[in-house]
Amino acid sequence: MKKLMLLVGLVGFTMTQAQTKYVLVLHGGAGTITKASMTPEKEAAYKAALSQALQAGYAQIKSGETAVEAVAAAIEILENSPLFNAGKGAVFTAEGKNELDASIMYSKNLQAGAVAGVSTIKNPIKAAIAVMRYSPHVLLIGKGAEEFASLQHLELVPPEYFYTAERYKSLQKFLKNEANKKPTSFSSTPSALEVDYKFGTVGAVALDHAGNLAAGTSTGGMTGKKWNRVGDAPLIGSGTYANSWVGVSATGWGEFFIRTAAARTLAAKMEYQGKDVKMAGQEVIQEIEKLGGDGGLIALDKNGQVSTPFNTSGMYRGTITDKGEIEVQIYR
Amino acid sequence: MKKLMLLVGLVGFTMTQAQTKYVLVLHGGAGTITKASMTPEKEAAYKAALSQALQAGYAQIKSGETAVEAVAAAIEILENSPLFNAGKGAVFTAEGKNELDASIMYSKNLQAGAVAGVSTIKNPIKAAIAVMRYSPHVLLIGKGAEEFASLQHLELVPPEYFYTAERYKSLQKFLKNEANKKPTSFSSTPSALEVDYKFGTVGAVALDHAGNLAAGTSTGGMTGKKWNRVGDAPLIGSGTYANSWVGVSATGWGEFFIRTAAARTLAAKMEYQGKDVKMAGQEVIQEIEKLGGDGGLIALDKNGQVSTPFNTSGMYRGTITDKGEIEVQIYR
Repeated sequence: MKKLMLLVGLVGFTMTQAQTKYVLVLHGGAGTITKASMTPEKEAAYKAALSQALQAGYAQIKSGETAVEAVAAAIEILENSPLFNAGKGAVFTAEGKNELDASIMYSKNLQAGAVAGVSTIKNPIKAAIAVMRYSPHVLLIGKGAEEFASLQHLELVPPEYFYTAERYKSLQKFLKNEANKKPTSFSSTPSALEVDYKFGTVGAVALDHAGNLAAGTSTGGMTGKKWNRVGDAPLIGSGTYANSWVGVSATGWGEFFIRTAAARTLAAKMEYQGKDVKMAGQEVIQEIEKLGGDGGLIALDKNGQVSTPFNTSGMYRGTITDKGEIEVQIYR
Repeated sequence: MKKLMLLVGLVGFTMTQAQTKYVLVLHGGAGTITKASMTPEKEAAYKAALSQALQAGYAQIKSGETAVEAVAAAIEILENSPLFNAGKGAVFTAEGKNELDASIMYSKNLQAGAVAGVSTIKNPIKAAIAVMRYSPHVLLIGKGAEEFASLQHLELVPPEYFYTAERYKSLQKFLKNEANKKPTSFSSTPSALEVDYKFGTVGAVALDHAGNLAAGTSTGGMTGKKWNRVGDAPLIGSGTYANSWVGVSATGWGEFFIRTAAARTLAAKMEYQGKDVKMAGQEVIQEIEKLGGDGGLIALDKNGQVSTPFNTSGMYRGTITDKGEIEVQIYR
């Protein structure tokens, strides 16, 4: 009897799973995000921005556009919001600049594009898409990437566009904390305080009518970053990957996502080991945690199944189904 | 009887395989390298440089140093030679500059470091190793990477150091060819002539006494590259990867190695599918060929088994066994 009930339960569960098909999932960064540290106004603002981004991406899918258009529409909204560490809300480098990175990958023929270390492109995700579509290259950096964006008639802004008082305050706090630290080796582990300076990256994964997947990621990197550091966000296989199995976008302590080739590894676990998107996603985050890293990721597979694992206290995230049902979450 | 002979043959083959343990493998680039296009002097020069690099790396392993030291010693020799498209012999960008990239990964705790778009660091592989060991980051680019290298007391050179008459001639040929082309979309497929402008990257993989693997790659990129293009060489998971299964360094048309996350994919085929290093290597090159790309790679697994697949007419390559036996090859 018990066995039968279990079986019925499983069948019911499987049926529900099969009924829910997601077409878009996004994140706005993982980190030390707790209910206690949040005001109701701030929480509402984050949820509104995530919902708006989900709806914008969904509209593209519904009207028959590709998954690339859906990812672009969703990420553009998050880039234009000062709430997230991407586009307008990018964090500051140690020198008080903003250096932005973004990447896109489309499962159809494994197309990809990315830009890193740019300071004058309003929407880096659009530049990544232009690199994918209109250049023979995958990754352009710095001034060269900006020159290419200009040739592509993308919107350029003065570097000051990326100034926000809140991010600048974060940099001052970071620099004060650095100054108080004893000089140690470059490889010193960041303190608990520093941990929050490296989150807020945004990303989206979409599944279009043709069954193709696109994944995109955009970021301002880490507050106080030095030496033109580049994280995982613009790196295909690290922060972003999309093939015929799954699309992935990551957020968190970028160096660990590079060393584990996180996004490609997730896809490989599905393709080569037959794992489902949830197990593959959890395993990737576990491997990062084992190395001492933290963060999260979003993954959407070819069947519309979704996974949003993270090992921080929170991750801004949201999903929308093929029927337009939105779910937005922040905490664990 | 025939069956028995086949069986004996197989056993003999397997035994031979098990007896030969390689400790270092390297490449000096893949491309349209044919016996017809080579002079005996040039061939001898390439073989001498490859042998010298193998011996330098081998000396490190023999004296008990780590695989990272072995890779560094081997690549430093190739970087200092004008024969290869890395360090001294780096190709020119469309603007007549040299922009170098390098990366290193060490299987022990999945450590990694890389630099991209640098113009004043004599040995980019050393800068990549410094990033791995002495910074909390994995990838530094441009001026910031150079500043970090300076803080690490690495040898800096004026950008003119990287001028060689032969590479400059290649650029002039490239620019003349470009000028004669009808203006087309940015994504036009490079012509057969252009194909040879993107090869010559160097790389090495070593296995040390502790059983750890290191893989490193160094390049000047593509002749006539624009917009600060970065290829697969400095990207962990694309041109370079090393975990407890295998170390990999790639060379060829970088964009395809990025889109397939070639180095990480090879390791995943071994780890998740149980394939041997030869089959995993061949499959990766086949996937690149299927997408329209070309090039080659070297891989050395934890048991000292080696694989050097490529789909071009040649690849400068060499191996050395734990007994110091050197083999150097150029053609298919």
